[in-house]
Amino acid sequence: MAITHASPGQIIDISPLGEQLAESKTVALFKSNDIEVIRLVLLAGKSFPPHTVSGEVTIQCIEGVMSVSASGIDSILRIGQLIYLQGDVLHSINALENASALVTIALVK
Amino acid sequence: MAITHASPGQIIDISPLGEQLAESKTVALFKSNDIEVIRLVLLAGKSFPPHTVSGEVTIQCIEGVMSVSASGIDSILRIGQLIYLQGDVLHSINALENASALVTIALVK
Repeated sequence: MAITHASPGQIIDISPLGEQLAESKTVALFKSNDIEVIRLVLLAGKSFPPHTVSGEVTIQCIEGVMSVSASGIDSILRIGQLIYLQGDVLHSINALENASALVTIALVK
Repeated sequence: MAITHASPGQIIDISPLGEQLAESKTVALFKSNDIEVIRLVLLAGKSFPPHTVSGEVTIQCIEGVMSVSASGIDSILRIGQLIYLQGDVLHSINALENASALVTIALVK
């Protein structure tokens, strides 16, 4: 299936995937001039390995529980919680339960 | 009370304000190099008047119902929904019920 990115002004559903979570994949919701937004899906025990991005990032837990590791600190992120990381900071995300997160990346020129 | 902005890696609570909503004010959660994140509180019938920002913006409804007007289109935003707007687009937000939203602004240099 081709991935259709959202357009400006279009309503984007970011509610919990619930029963569909286990069969869902990470998807880019849109990538525009200044911002990219991804719904990251990580099943329990899986991780998004250490990486950096140039711009700042926010990670918001939509469902489940995850651990965000950055600058030698592990932070537990639960539903209704958000964390931000500065650009070029090596970080990884580990799912402690089946989880999804809204990841917003500032696209730095 | 002095406003304390969150630091990178700090857990930020963005869960619904619920019973505290009616007594809450809009607050900047943090402003860093590339991103500013605000929790906008708008009580029913109130609006954030037409304005522009240079960078792109995402608006995520945390609770309540709001209408986002941009480029001549009114979009109804409910819990679990997100919309993004390109930079320099005149927009306004009107609360149809007591509402709060997470607003993420790309700080364009």
